[in-house]
Amino acid sequence: MASSLLHCSDKLPFMDVETILHMKEGLDESSYAQNSSLQKRGMDTLKSLIINSATDVYISQMPERFTVADLGCSSGPNALCLVEDIIGGIGKVCCRSSQPPPEFSVLLNDLPTNDFNTIFFSLPEFTHRLKSAAKSDEWGRPMVFLSGVPGSFYGRLFPRTSVHFICSCSSLHWLSQVPPGLFDEAKAPINKGKMYISSTSPPAVSVAYRRQFQRDFSLFLKSRAAEVFPGGRMVLAMLGRQTDECVDRRTTFLWELLSESFAALVSQGLVEQDKVDAYNVPFYAPSLQEIEVEVRLEGSFSLDYVQTYEINLSSSGDAKEDGRTVSMAIRAIQESMLSHHFGPDIVDALFHEYTQLVTESMEREEVKSVQIGVVLTRL
Amino acid sequence: MASSLLHCSDKLPFMDVETILHMKEGLDESSYAQNSSLQKRGMDTLKSLIINSATDVYISQMPERFTVADLGCSSGPNALCLVEDIIGGIGKVCCRSSQPPPEFSVLLNDLPTNDFNTIFFSLPEFTHRLKSAAKSDEWGRPMVFLSGVPGSFYGRLFPRTSVHFICSCSSLHWLSQVPPGLFDEAKAPINKGKMYISSTSPPAVSVAYRRQFQRDFSLFLKSRAAEVFPGGRMVLAMLGRQTDECVDRRTTFLWELLSESFAALVSQGLVEQDKVDAYNVPFYAPSLQEIEVEVRLEGSFSLDYVQTYEINLSSSGDAKEDGRTVSMAIRAIQESMLSHHFGPDIVDALFHEYTQLVTESMEREEVKSVQIGVVLTRL
Repeated sequence: MASSLLHCSDKLPFMDVETILHMKEGLDESSYAQNSSLQKRGMDTLKSLIINSATDVYISQMPERFTVADLGCSSGPNALCLVEDIIGGIGKVCCRSSQPPPEFSVLLNDLPTNDFNTIFFSLPEFTHRLKSAAKSDEWGRPMVFLSGVPGSFYGRLFPRTSVHFICSCSSLHWLSQVPPGLFDEAKAPINKGKMYISSTSPPAVSVAYRRQFQRDFSLFLKSRAAEVFPGGRMVLAMLGRQTDECVDRRTTFLWELLSESFAALVSQGLVEQDKVDAYNVPFYAPSLQEIEVEVRLEGSFSLDYVQTYEINLSSSGDAKEDGRTVSMAIRAIQESMLSHHFGPDIVDALFHEYTQLVTESMEREEVKSVQIGVVLTRL
Repeated sequence: MASSLLHCSDKLPFMDVETILHMKEGLDESSYAQNSSLQKRGMDTLKSLIINSATDVYISQMPERFTVADLGCSSGPNALCLVEDIIGGIGKVCCRSSQPPPEFSVLLNDLPTNDFNTIFFSLPEFTHRLKSAAKSDEWGRPMVFLSGVPGSFYGRLFPRTSVHFICSCSSLHWLSQVPPGLFDEAKAPINKGKMYISSTSPPAVSVAYRRQFQRDFSLFLKSRAAEVFPGGRMVLAMLGRQTDECVDRRTTFLWELLSESFAALVSQGLVEQDKVDAYNVPFYAPSLQEIEVEVRLEGSFSLDYVQTYEINLSSSGDAKEDGRTVSMAIRAIQESMLSHHFGPDIVDALFHEYTQLVTESMEREEVKSVQIGVVLTRL
């Protein structure tokens, strides 16, 4: 196994995101599977766009084998539900036109540290649901071939010209690495006390993050360009910004509260300030314009649709309930990286603070996040 | 998740092999990963046959994408080593003929309960080894796309006409289910005290096992016939017999000792006799003739090569060491089913007995097993 803590040429510690970052495995109370309702809501917002886009590709190409990939599938109930909807959508189209459905090849991708076992354990249930749906819609038993594809989507994942449709929800805001350039020439951290772009961060922080996004997203597009059939499509959804400036309160707010939680732990002597200063998340919430520029520069895809959506995180109206939901979600996402950097012992105390801060914020105001939805067609 | 203990129409308990059987997960002392050296020796016996068969398919077809599948890959070091050898073999052929190597699509299959996570965690190491080998052989960096395909090989796994080469080692002696017909009309077990065909079993036991093998192996061939390109090949290796009769001491011996170990536990009051009487393994070691008949009846493959090999299980000459190796191997294979049927508490005591019995046998004589190797070409 590759070492998870590599050292760059400049001797600064470098976190190997590919071998560290994963959503909390398993099915227990703190697992991602149990704490991914926010991501599910993000997916639901774009559900009909995804199904319609996939169905359009099928109708225009009518292949005997339709290959669909979900990038950053994670584990838990969300991992299979988009795929199920896509298969159902195409199945109904075939039924209406009295055609047999195609064979479906379903490629579920995530990093090699993702909990694929939990997805695969739920396969019998998935197969059973598909059969029931197919029966009630009377389009015959679908042939669905499912596989798990471990690897970073910032690089090639699939053979050349082999995929008809790709979707990716709540994943592309993760960068391939913490941006280089967050330390000065004396190797001192420049984003002290913060873990993402903040209103108090020096301008070099935004620049470093934006450059990393540009490198990563263009590599993503180039890799997918090799893999997607001409006429094939991608629907991408990620957290994003509605502002040109890199500081959009709705994307930085939850990171700010996590930094505040760390400040509380530092004041209690539980964590060293130096450790907090050196921690930055491999995350970037792009603007529509930043996405458009990279798509145009790469040149293999047309941008058919791009839109931002607001997601209300205070959805139940009960600040305590909503605060806990958000805190548990962030924990399930961040625990692997936090444990790696700070050790596992601080995680409970950290999220105790964090839950309180999020809840207090929600008592004062509605907390919203911004999601970007994009549809791209391979030229 | 589908229930793992279903009930047949005749109300006899029925073990759902697909959701129960798996090699012991993880990497610890009792894991399959740490206890699969015997299977590795089986694979090594056929290694050059596998590499040459795969290379021949590549040379005859020269596809831009070469798709290879390992059925019953399990987890641990064995899971990736055949694939690595195949890629290396084809890479060298390309190098000698100054051709760029194809893209490789590698499909690793096992039941959904297999520990795919452990395979995927070792991917960075696998990729690193491939790169090093490619560099030293000077055939350029190979593009290898690996995926895990959960499902039973007694049914379709891959899209139609999509695979060039299939290998399967130490897996096809596992049946899809415990054969029906091991209980009489009064629902009493007919193979009392035994868990596989024994010299004292009534003839109906052999008949039930052979019929299950015939059904399973013909379904296996039919499924693969749909998936393999014309001219594509399969190399299959499994435990087998050198006799026409179903009782071949070298295939029944280790099961007999496991039954004896259970008898000891029954006499100590640790296990009920009824439980032992009702336990049968979903295993069958076929003869060459039985394989040939099914291949001929199915009709989609030519049988290019078929051979039996003896594997000496007393290889080190130290009965204690060899006895422990065999006992740990059988435990890693059988623990999932034994725990399901008897509960997990008896497993330590059972294998304590078993290690002693195997060691005592090895002190008296060399213990050997028989493996069958088959090469089939899709017509």
